[in-house]
Amino acid sequence: MRQFLESDVLYMRMALDLACSVKGKTFPNPAVGAVIVDSDNNIIGKGATQKCGGPHAEIVALKQAGNKAKGATLYVTLEPCCHFGRTPPCCDSIIACGLKKVVFAVEDPNPAVAGKGCRVLKNHGIEVKTGMLGDEASLINEDFFWAVKMKRAWVTLKLAMTLDGRIADCSSSSKWITGDAAREMVHELRRCHAAVAVGKRTLQKDNPRLNVRHKKGFSPARIVFSTNGIIPQYSYFYKHADEARSIVVVSSSRYSEIIKEDSGVEFWYTGEKDPERSFNKFLEMAYSQNLTSIFFEGGQQIGSQLLQFKLVNRLYLFYGNRLTGKGIEGVLFSKGLPLSDCITLSGIQHKTIGSDFLISGIPVYSK
Amino acid sequence: MRQFLESDVLYMRMALDLACSVKGKTFPNPAVGAVIVDSDNNIIGKGATQKCGGPHAEIVALKQAGNKAKGATLYVTLEPCCHFGRTPPCCDSIIACGLKKVVFAVEDPNPAVAGKGCRVLKNHGIEVKTGMLGDEASLINEDFFWAVKMKRAWVTLKLAMTLDGRIADCSSSSKWITGDAAREMVHELRRCHAAVAVGKRTLQKDNPRLNVRHKKGFSPARIVFSTNGIIPQYSYFYKHADEARSIVVVSSSRYSEIIKEDSGVEFWYTGEKDPERSFNKFLEMAYSQNLTSIFFEGGQQIGSQLLQFKLVNRLYLFYGNRLTGKGIEGVLFSKGLPLSDCITLSGIQHKTIGSDFLISGIPVYSK
Repeated sequence: MRQFLESDVLYMRMALDLACSVKGKTFPNPAVGAVIVDSDNNIIGKGATQKCGGPHAEIVALKQAGNKAKGATLYVTLEPCCHFGRTPPCCDSIIACGLKKVVFAVEDPNPAVAGKGCRVLKNHGIEVKTGMLGDEASLINEDFFWAVKMKRAWVTLKLAMTLDGRIADCSSSSKWITGDAAREMVHELRRCHAAVAVGKRTLQKDNPRLNVRHKKGFSPARIVFSTNGIIPQYSYFYKHADEARSIVVVSSSRYSEIIKEDSGVEFWYTGEKDPERSFNKFLEMAYSQNLTSIFFEGGQQIGSQLLQFKLVNRLYLFYGNRLTGKGIEGVLFSKGLPLSDCITLSGIQHKTIGSDFLISGIPVYSK
Repeated sequence: MRQFLESDVLYMRMALDLACSVKGKTFPNPAVGAVIVDSDNNIIGKGATQKCGGPHAEIVALKQAGNKAKGATLYVTLEPCCHFGRTPPCCDSIIACGLKKVVFAVEDPNPAVAGKGCRVLKNHGIEVKTGMLGDEASLINEDFFWAVKMKRAWVTLKLAMTLDGRIADCSSSSKWITGDAAREMVHELRRCHAAVAVGKRTLQKDNPRLNVRHKKGFSPARIVFSTNGIIPQYSYFYKHADEARSIVVVSSSRYSEIIKEDSGVEFWYTGEKDPERSFNKFLEMAYSQNLTSIFFEGGQQIGSQLLQFKLVNRLYLFYGNRLTGKGIEGVLFSKGLPLSDCITLSGIQHKTIGSDFLISGIPVYSK
């Protein structure tokens, strides 16, 4: 096992905090944090990834450090890039500034980098250490890492249920299952995804804004799934298509194509009638359109299909302090799984939010 | 607001811990703890209620203190009794021992005591303080207090559900929804109730032992609800009726009566065909038979009926790390409640148990 100094851990944790602070603001780039420390243990530069097209975390920190960077150590949550993307390679700047040592938390899964950044630095005589707080660094960008590896969007599914597992009562009302604090948290989760998606029924019933309240800056794209492509004209989604990228996903067309209407709404035809194939196609289209992570907010049909098709990468289950005794079940498969071979959650986390409760984790599917 | 010394709180908390230590071992008496402290702040006596017919907490502590009790202070979690029950009045012993002061947490709701104990002590020149840590003391005996006041048994309902609210999968299997630690806790909860109850279907399907594993001492009574009174002869319940009081509750008889069979099984005829009336009658019968608290473990029908009839006093919802997508819903009312006017839980508590989760609280019913 590699040994790290306590101070190393401290600086890397600082870099992780910087990465967290920009999560959701850097699409389609990962959220990265960087800290530069001189030989006297003075912090001479700090930075986090800027929004798409802006400088990476390392460059922000290097700029702050200026001439003092010579002989210093860089702590960064992700392997520095060595290729020209929207910006020049960070490795070039690191070498040019005369840094002595680079500590990074986790390798960049992007095939254009993946270990190459590390080699380039070593070849230029820079000491490189890796793997410190790697699990935490991976978690911050779990969606990005997965999307880059699989070349398809990461899927988060959120359900807000009653204590007895219903997402709406018998009159289809789903308002106020959870309290203010939990709803605030949902807005925070939306903010951390490239897009927010619902089914057409949810759009018709709830007419949600699908935006991020109380926060300025990045607005996730809005996505509505509609088999026949028909969307109510009265909907907030339709009337305010100019506020954020607005997409209707249509499964009933022969060819996969994207058409943008004058209203600003994009229609994505997946070219697949079969729901499972259509979702899979959609996730590839989303990735190719720089939407690396999708936050699905139900309803019952879409959420249940995504789980049945084993497409959900992370599940958030909010339980409100309510019990209706009957209503629309949060999850309803066409064929139930046996308890001995059902879906479980790995890395399960529990969180109390006022009188509501949140369980989250990574679904582990049966074979 | 009454002011108490820090040391007062310390001694009362000690008494509360003593009360907790005997919870479930004192039926049909409440669980009470007592601490006696002399004028130099030495603890000279400690005690907790002994099993039915044995001495109360105060008497155990007084016996320990012996002659030193003269001029000392008694801290006790419940108002001392002043009537002859199964044992002589504690107030008489307190007066006889020459205690100077009595601090008790909460008044005894038993009409035979209810403030009278306090008055008797005062009339004999003993200083009395009340209300210290009263909420905590009430919580320990919430079932007893309620039963004594209402003259009917307290109802606890426990459901062990999947994350999507099912208590069994499509093949009616309900094994291993929760893990070892949660199941251990269920046994602990059983131990704290006078009786454990299930429906006939659960008996037929799971053949549960309804006992308290890994614990010696008190065995709760076992109760099975069977409309027609027929119980499978192969069941553990029937074959081991000698291990604990075993009761079959039958709703289809004209007169409310109790018949004991040679097998040891008691048949309680509620004399009410209507399920709501039958449950109500049963709870009165249980109280009159010294069963002050009933721990219901489902299935779907009994649990849902108890909730619909507003008879559940405390609800324990265990969520296992499982998602089946379909199966037997934990709660299913004949008519669902609207979200705006549904059941909520007051005093809600959340507890992580390994990868399982427990939510408990007092149901608050709509009008």
